[in-house]
Amino acid sequence: MALTIDPSGSVTSPQGFVAGATYAGMKTSGEGKLDVALLASQLPCSVAATFTKNLLHSASVDINRARLAGGPARAVVVNAGIANSSTGTRGLADGERATELAGERLGIDPREVLICSTGVIGHFLPMEKIESGISAITVTSAGGHDFARAIMTTDTRPKHASVRFGPYTLGGCTKGSGMIHPNMATMLAFLTTDASVAAGYLQRTLSGVVERSFNLLSIDGDTSPSDTALLFANGGAGGTVIDTGAPLAGEFEEALEMLCTYLAKEMARDGEGATKLIEFRVSGAASVGEARSVVRALSTSYLLKSAVHGADPNWGRIVAVVGRSGVAVSEPAVTVSICGVCVFEGEQPTSFDAERVSEAMRSDTVVIEVELGAGDGSATGWGCDLSAEYVSINADYHT
Amino acid sequence: MALTIDPSGSVTSPQGFVAGATYAGMKTSGEGKLDVALLASQLPCSVAATFTKNLLHSASVDINRARLAGGPARAVVVNAGIANSSTGTRGLADGERATELAGERLGIDPREVLICSTGVIGHFLPMEKIESGISAITVTSAGGHDFARAIMTTDTRPKHASVRFGPYTLGGCTKGSGMIHPNMATMLAFLTTDASVAAGYLQRTLSGVVERSFNLLSIDGDTSPSDTALLFANGGAGGTVIDTGAPLAGEFEEALEMLCTYLAKEMARDGEGATKLIEFRVSGAASVGEARSVVRALSTSYLLKSAVHGADPNWGRIVAVVGRSGVAVSEPAVTVSICGVCVFEGEQPTSFDAERVSEAMRSDTVVIEVELGAGDGSATGWGCDLSAEYVSINADYHT
Repeated sequence: MALTIDPSGSVTSPQGFVAGATYAGMKTSGEGKLDVALLASQLPCSVAATFTKNLLHSASVDINRARLAGGPARAVVVNAGIANSSTGTRGLADGERATELAGERLGIDPREVLICSTGVIGHFLPMEKIESGISAITVTSAGGHDFARAIMTTDTRPKHASVRFGPYTLGGCTKGSGMIHPNMATMLAFLTTDASVAAGYLQRTLSGVVERSFNLLSIDGDTSPSDTALLFANGGAGGTVIDTGAPLAGEFEEALEMLCTYLAKEMARDGEGATKLIEFRVSGAASVGEARSVVRALSTSYLLKSAVHGADPNWGRIVAVVGRSGVAVSEPAVTVSICGVCVFEGEQPTSFDAERVSEAMRSDTVVIEVELGAGDGSATGWGCDLSAEYVSINADYHT
Repeated sequence: MALTIDPSGSVTSPQGFVAGATYAGMKTSGEGKLDVALLASQLPCSVAATFTKNLLHSASVDINRARLAGGPARAVVVNAGIANSSTGTRGLADGERATELAGERLGIDPREVLICSTGVIGHFLPMEKIESGISAITVTSAGGHDFARAIMTTDTRPKHASVRFGPYTLGGCTKGSGMIHPNMATMLAFLTTDASVAAGYLQRTLSGVVERSFNLLSIDGDTSPSDTALLFANGGAGGTVIDTGAPLAGEFEEALEMLCTYLAKEMARDGEGATKLIEFRVSGAASVGEARSVVRALSTSYLLKSAVHGADPNWGRIVAVVGRSGVAVSEPAVTVSICGVCVFEGEQPTSFDAERVSEAMRSDTVVIEVELGAGDGSATGWGCDLSAEYVSINADYHT
């Protein structure tokens, strides 16, 4: 049976997961604002995680790495508004204290609690607000939507979904709108499943899927020090353990990739100042790695992002990016399509109807396809257009 | 004697160089617009050149590489408005024909004529306009300023200067305002000297200086397929040949670096939509190469460029870029200064006066210094802020 995304799903769609959130006063206030959240499994879990490759990462990332080296976790506390990054040893102590408070509230061992923090770099966590916030949270099996809203910063809308595979459900949510060029994970992604999944297989599968989904997303080329993806599998729906070669392993991986890809595209679409999603499909590369390099060069080009904003079928900028992307390429073999129309082949522009392509580019999704004619490697990635609004958001988002 | 830049100098300041320009109708018309230009030495020359590393480069770059492999050149014809890039074999034939026309007009062997083209990618040269344009140009020793104006595209002002060293003069001009992230040369740079310089030494010196000047400039991270720097040395001022170890070799190199650095900064200041120059000074890197990597990561960050536009002393974004720049770095060793004020050290922000630093960032030059504490490698590079105007220029600059 073909898998399908349920956009109304969330991290509490799988059985045995509960979540909740409250407003503790870290974000500027506003109707319905939430900024501290808890997610927990009512059952023991296997956990997989990927973290930022930014060498100057947040205290939360350090804490999570240490916790997961010691054993599995089953809960996470998240705060939005303050990243707790570049905060030294005090940042580590504050983050650990927050996990203790969360463990107390949830009635579980604090060593089973992870922490994610997102927001301004270099500010200390306001521990009184964190403490009163955590004590005010009630977690329920309907709390997934509040959780998805609480983790937002410059996001304009929450991103959450679920996928059913076999008798199981996989749920997830992400946040991220700026400083998005994930390298190993994306800003923050929380994924849950009520299947029982072997830990090693869970981690390998998550790592592979992240490479093909979140890591091929770029909003502005900047990699955050807080990037984290967490996947909890609690077996709440019963059944046998999914491991390499198990009957449902293929379907599990497919469901995970579908969910992560959906969430990556939702993030691109909600990129800071973005008015549309751009999907980059690169084929004919000498390797998958080279195809990914071209995707990332395209998705980070100021010129191309600006051209898409202006609905300009500027294939010249696409060719120029391909040429500087660092992969071996020969111009006669390159073809470029925009919104399904071939605009460049045989070293020359085709006689395409520029008005018609420009009109197609005014929709909310623009697909750019590049065929390199050098091999079988392909990759698809996502980005967004560059608008004046992006500059306003980031010129005014003061430290 | 300390060398000094003369901002009124040009490519015809050195003896024995003539230039001229006309309007042939490739740019949109306007008062005083020029779009075809000639520069020639009245004497045989040695020539050094660096070209784009973009693999999909323009026909002009191909022609120049072939010409220079065959022997020295002494003239160049330049057209602005059309890049003659991604134009296949017809583009090559058109470019070669333009050099023939220029050779006829100048009364020299066409094989001694180079060609540079800048503007929109993928359009063919309008050969009738090129032919009538070239035939209308009169070259004189006062033509350097017209030459500098004729090569402009989205530039808002010409960039030219000269430096005296010993009994000699070194002159130059550049163009470039968008698609600027040179890799081996910059958009277009023309440099002349009336010293006699040995060819091999000339090339080595140019290559080294370009690495430290144009190649550390970034306006938008995109490398043009037309990037070219040409340096002509004609011995018009007499004297002995400058070669490795010659008495004036040090001063020549110093003059060339001073001129190229001045022109690189002028380009950054005139970057598309830019309101200010940003100078990035990275020190304490494990190597010069690592310092340059950090400079380039900083100068291409959308977030940092937006923050500088908003006069926001957002050191957190600087630290985040350093952490993802690919070089080994340890947070406790990193210090960051903005406009001379230390804002981050010992893993924490200092208690700096944000209002005062923000006020300093409102000037037309912002200096960002990063000390990595890992070694002796250092590098300085240049970029500009990101404004809403950049997006407008590039969303509306249609193919």
